[in-house]
Amino acid sequence: LKREITNVKYSVNQVSTQMGNYLVCIGKDEFDIRSIGHLSGVKDIHRVNEIVKLVSRKWKTERTQIDLGDGVKVGDKNFAIMAGPCSIEGEEQIRSTVKQLVKSGVRIMRGGVYKPRSSPYSFRGMGMDGLKLFSQLCKAEGIKIITEVMQVSQVEEMHDYVDIFQVGSRNSQNFNLLDALGGIDKPVLIKRGISGSIDELLYSAEYIFSGGNEKLMLCERGIRTYERAYRNTLDLNAVPILKEKSHLPVIVDPSHGIGLRQHMEPMALAATVAGADGLLLEIHEQPEIAFSDGQQTLNYREFEQLLEKIKIIKEVL
Amino acid sequence: LKREITNVKYSVNQVSTQMGNYLVCIGKDEFDIRSIGHLSGVKDIHRVNEIVKLVSRKWKTERTQIDLGDGVKVGDKNFAIMAGPCSIEGEEQIRSTVKQLVKSGVRIMRGGVYKPRSSPYSFRGMGMDGLKLFSQLCKAEGIKIITEVMQVSQVEEMHDYVDIFQVGSRNSQNFNLLDALGGIDKPVLIKRGISGSIDELLYSAEYIFSGGNEKLMLCERGIRTYERAYRNTLDLNAVPILKEKSHLPVIVDPSHGIGLRQHMEPMALAATVAGADGLLLEIHEQPEIAFSDGQQTLNYREFEQLLEKIKIIKEVL
Amino acid sequence: LKREITNVKYSVNQVSTQMGNYLVCIGKDEFDIRSIGHLSGVKDIHRVNEIVKLVSRKWKTERTQIDLGDGVKVGDKNFAIMAGPCSIEGEEQIRSTVKQLVKSGVRIMRGGVYKPRSSPYSFRGMGMDGLKLFSQLCKAEGIKIITEVMQVSQVEEMHDYVDIFQVGSRNSQNFNLLDALGGIDKPVLIKRGISGSIDELLYSAEYIFSGGNEKLMLCERGIRTYERAYRNTLDLNAVPILKEKSHLPVIVDPSHGIGLRQHMEPMALAATVAGADGLLLEIHEQPEIAFSDGQQTLNYREFEQLLEKIKIIKEVL
Amino acid sequence: LKREITNVKYSVNQVSTQMGNYLVCIGKDEFDIRSIGHLSGVKDIHRVNEIVKLVSRKWKTERTQIDLGDGVKVGDKNFAIMAGPCSIEGEEQIRSTVKQLVKSGVRIMRGGVYKPRSSPYSFRGMGMDGLKLFSQLCKAEGIKIITEVMQVSQVEEMHDYVDIFQVGSRNSQNFNLLDALGGIDKPVLIKRGISGSIDELLYSAEYIFSGGNEKLMLCERGIRTYERAYRNTLDLNAVPILKEKSHLPVIVDPSHGIGLRQHMEPMALAATVAGADGLLLEIHEQPEIAFSDGQQTLNYREFEQLLEKIKIIKEVL
Repeated sequence: LKREITNVKYSVNQVSTQMGNYLVCIGKDEFDIRSIGHLSGVKDIHRVNEIVKLVSRKWKTERTQIDLGDGVKVGDKNFAIMAGPCSIEGEEQIRSTVKQLVKSGVRIMRGGVYKPRSSPYSFRGMGMDGLKLFSQLCKAEGIKIITEVMQVSQVEEMHDYVDIFQVGSRNSQNFNLLDALGGIDKPVLIKRGISGSIDELLYSAEYIFSGGNEKLMLCERGIRTYERAYRNTLDLNAVPILKEKSHLPVIVDPSHGIGLRQHMEPMALAATVAGADGLLLEIHEQPEIAFSDGQQTLNYREFEQLLEKIKIIKEVL
Repeated sequence: LKREITNVKYSVNQVSTQMGNYLVCIGKDEFDIRSIGHLSGVKDIHRVNEIVKLVSRKWKTERTQIDLGDGVKVGDKNFAIMAGPCSIEGEEQIRSTVKQLVKSGVRIMRGGVYKPRSSPYSFRGMGMDGLKLFSQLCKAEGIKIITEVMQVSQVEEMHDYVDIFQVGSRNSQNFNLLDALGGIDKPVLIKRGISGSIDELLYSAEYIFSGGNEKLMLCERGIRTYERAYRNTLDLNAVPILKEKSHLPVIVDPSHGIGLRQHMEPMALAATVAGADGLLLEIHEQPEIAFSDGQQTLNYREFEQLLEKIKIIKEVL
Repeated sequence: LKREITNVKYSVNQVSTQMGNYLVCIGKDEFDIRSIGHLSGVKDIHRVNEIVKLVSRKWKTERTQIDLGDGVKVGDKNFAIMAGPCSIEGEEQIRSTVKQLVKSGVRIMRGGVYKPRSSPYSFRGMGMDGLKLFSQLCKAEGIKIITEVMQVSQVEEMHDYVDIFQVGSRNSQNFNLLDALGGIDKPVLIKRGISGSIDELLYSAEYIFSGGNEKLMLCERGIRTYERAYRNTLDLNAVPILKEKSHLPVIVDPSHGIGLRQHMEPMALAATVAGADGLLLEIHEQPEIAFSDGQQTLNYREFEQLLEKIKIIKEVL
Repeated sequence: LKREITNVKYSVNQVSTQMGNYLVCIGKDEFDIRSIGHLSGVKDIHRVNEIVKLVSRKWKTERTQIDLGDGVKVGDKNFAIMAGPCSIEGEEQIRSTVKQLVKSGVRIMRGGVYKPRSSPYSFRGMGMDGLKLFSQLCKAEGIKIITEVMQVSQVEEMHDYVDIFQVGSRNSQNFNLLDALGGIDKPVLIKRGISGSIDELLYSAEYIFSGGNEKLMLCERGIRTYERAYRNTLDLNAVPILKEKSHLPVIVDPSHGIGLRQHMEPMALAATVAGADGLLLEIHEQPEIAFSDGQQTLNYREFEQLLEKIKIIKEVL
């Protein structure tokens, strides 16, 4: 079949994922559907005149939902809260967060064990020891884990302790890492680059998908602009645009976006009504003493208030 | 009194507005309140360690409300919709819009008669003839008018036909225009510059206020960034930041922000929950044939749907 | 003739400048040259498929030179230095600068008498009194003056005392001011907007040209980006691009660009070899005590060293 | 010794490079030099109140020079040209380029064998086979090789075939890759991130240096801004700033900067006079048929003209 298509001057990329086998055919001339459609083994043909193919809504019009197991789902009407500290700091902190999540009915906990830091002299996270502890305490309570992976060699070592791999904004175009994540069967959340375009985010998702993994989420986390009144320019425009261009769920991270604790609530609510499929939130029992990012972290009381307001909004809209 | 303060090495600016007489004293050393407070004529003293003074919330903690007369108010719990076409095109179009606004219970109509255009060969608006017609038809139905003023000489000529003067993003730092608007008793809405910082917007408001006019509104309308997937990056982060820094009402213009009709609703709703005091919306009976900005203009049906959703959200939050 | 062209569905703009009478015809279909070329009164026809017309190199391939009189020329092999203080501060300062310029063989002095300032409480320049003094002292020594005009009403009042009107970056899209400058016969230097695109700068020049004044210079002065290590990102890429797109002279202002005195020399030299037709430089006898912009101002010794290096480079290239 | 310093409340990082053993001590209070300086083993103490330490000019005032062997040096008066194709395409192309470099007296050839590409469906380079060929043909003519490394696992496999490892702009904050490059004894050129700040570039260099490798070069290659008239905004302001802040050589890549072949010469010359220690240039026998980046690649004749002009400028300045 590949040979037949190559004959009509298209380059053919074979993609086998958890959910199907696809041939992505790229060429300049118009594709004559009749010449392919009748070949045996072809079930369906989609014409995608977009820069990306498999992650495009031109290819798949229904919305993708990611099933994390145990009834935890993200996307397509399942609005997902993913909350927790910036960095995993130790057992007590994990227990405190898990307890709060259970109390609030939140099923996904975030927390970094490998931290990308501008300065080589900063704290870089607890590593695998922290992750194992994190995993053990969460599993006991049915909480799913999302945590950042920074390099190829970590993919395998972290694999069994992670429910969602997070690709950070600095690695948004680390193509080798994207390739590696294409080869596994675990959901991946890809953050937009620090000054990444929307198209580049879609391309990065296409990398993973074309590598064989279609359990993907896109994440808006603020872009770099000239404005200095806040940390990053959380770009909520990206939410409706990404949902128009792609079938993948769109998550918003207001903590890294505006980067100011007192303004997280309005931005989180705004993201919700703008159409986000979920939120990535930094919370901490005592933000003031967090190892990192305390200034953009909610305490538990603020977190509960926010969840209450989100609930009210989701009910009426 | 001014002399006394100058003696303590402060530069003194006297400001007389519609609502009071103020002395803005700027200096480097700590101000000894006791040395001034007891002087006759002093009612109150505020220490404002911000870049701006009179527009700062450090100076006035309660929120400002602008009264346009006939029961039309903007700010401090009065959420204001300002809707209408990009450009005033003629009598029929004005009548159609006014009729729709009356039907929707909207009290403020927008519409440009002087249009800033990048190219000298483009349509630049109907000018004073258009404005007079606009004013006459609106007054008859109790609709207030907001329209853009582009230069000092227009301030006087437009004065009697306008309820809110709009300063466009290209004139956000046209200091002579700001000075002129400081000398009148009409509300002014100042748009953030095309790549204006939040601080610059506050400074521009301070210009008008210190000139004697404190009936001011700030407007977020999208900033220029590297992203090309939409027109401008509507910066909703600016909403909570402006409301924290200033007591002035904050209006959001999603039409010029994201600039795409199909995405105006989510951005308008997001602005609402982010804390905006009002919205500036482009609507047209037939956006497809509008003289300008048709691609970012709602038709009447879309406009009504949006108003309905805003109403629901305002009720529950 | 206009009627004839309108008949072929082109909109026609008549432009009469110091140097000629032009008809700018804008339309979508291909223009049939034969149908126009034979009409009486037509001397030449140029097809310009660019966003701008009269300032485009597609319209005029030779480079424009501005003659300021007394042998002072800018553009087309006449590399022009325009130097002086940020603000005109008083007689002594003008005399000191003029003396230095005469000594260095520099024929154009810069100096602001109307200063755009972010804060309404800052020093806003000496105004017309300063300008008259400035003009008188320069004329006596054959020095030409470039100074900023901020609003329409100043054009007439400043006219007789100015050799080059400067449009500042905040007024780069003040279209009424551009219109007014199109109506006079004095050279104009237009600065690129604070975050103005190259195309917008060309459009602004087209405004003035189409208004009747073709004595124009374009000026790169740094753009606003996310980088905070210097004042503005002096965009030298704009130099070859502007010279490719337009026949107008291109001046570079490294003082407002990088904004750091110790780095002005390398940036000024870089602008020179990148193809600039001149430099706008801030100099002051004692930069440390200048009223404004002292941190980006050269002292006389540094200025002379820079001129010497420019001279060497111009000789070998 | 570390213990002694830790006692005075400083965190101590031990760094052993090819050239020495250093202790980087970070703390908040003033360091009492006398309490450390007399300890045995201490040769010198530098106080560096900058965000970065080992790459700062506060730590080392003389300029660093990188010796590549065979008389090829970069930095501190050794202006280095590194030229070659964007991608290594095959034997014939390498031979042609090498021949041209030998003819021009250029000693370092660039060429990618691992290409970071936005789209997963694009050509990603010839890989190790290409590198081995590249290395073999260059060694035969005494030409040194600079090529991009994209991930940790490639460091070891590429090591013996590479003279300078290039870290691309997308990997500028790939901290694991930086750590890995800190552990080897090969020069590294680090490109500024796509929207990387100057400080972030210095931090990335600090990562490698603190990992044990001080053979470093910094590279400006254009930043992402709103301007669309060229590919990237080549930021020549970065050149004098980087040279003021760091002792490391600064290389400029005008090909990826402005990204337009016809404007590479002025930008390359501008970079030279702005103080760059070298240039990274894309050249190709026939840019029109290059596998990638043809539109920003010089042909041999243009390359020779540029070298000639650089030579003239370097002689007079």
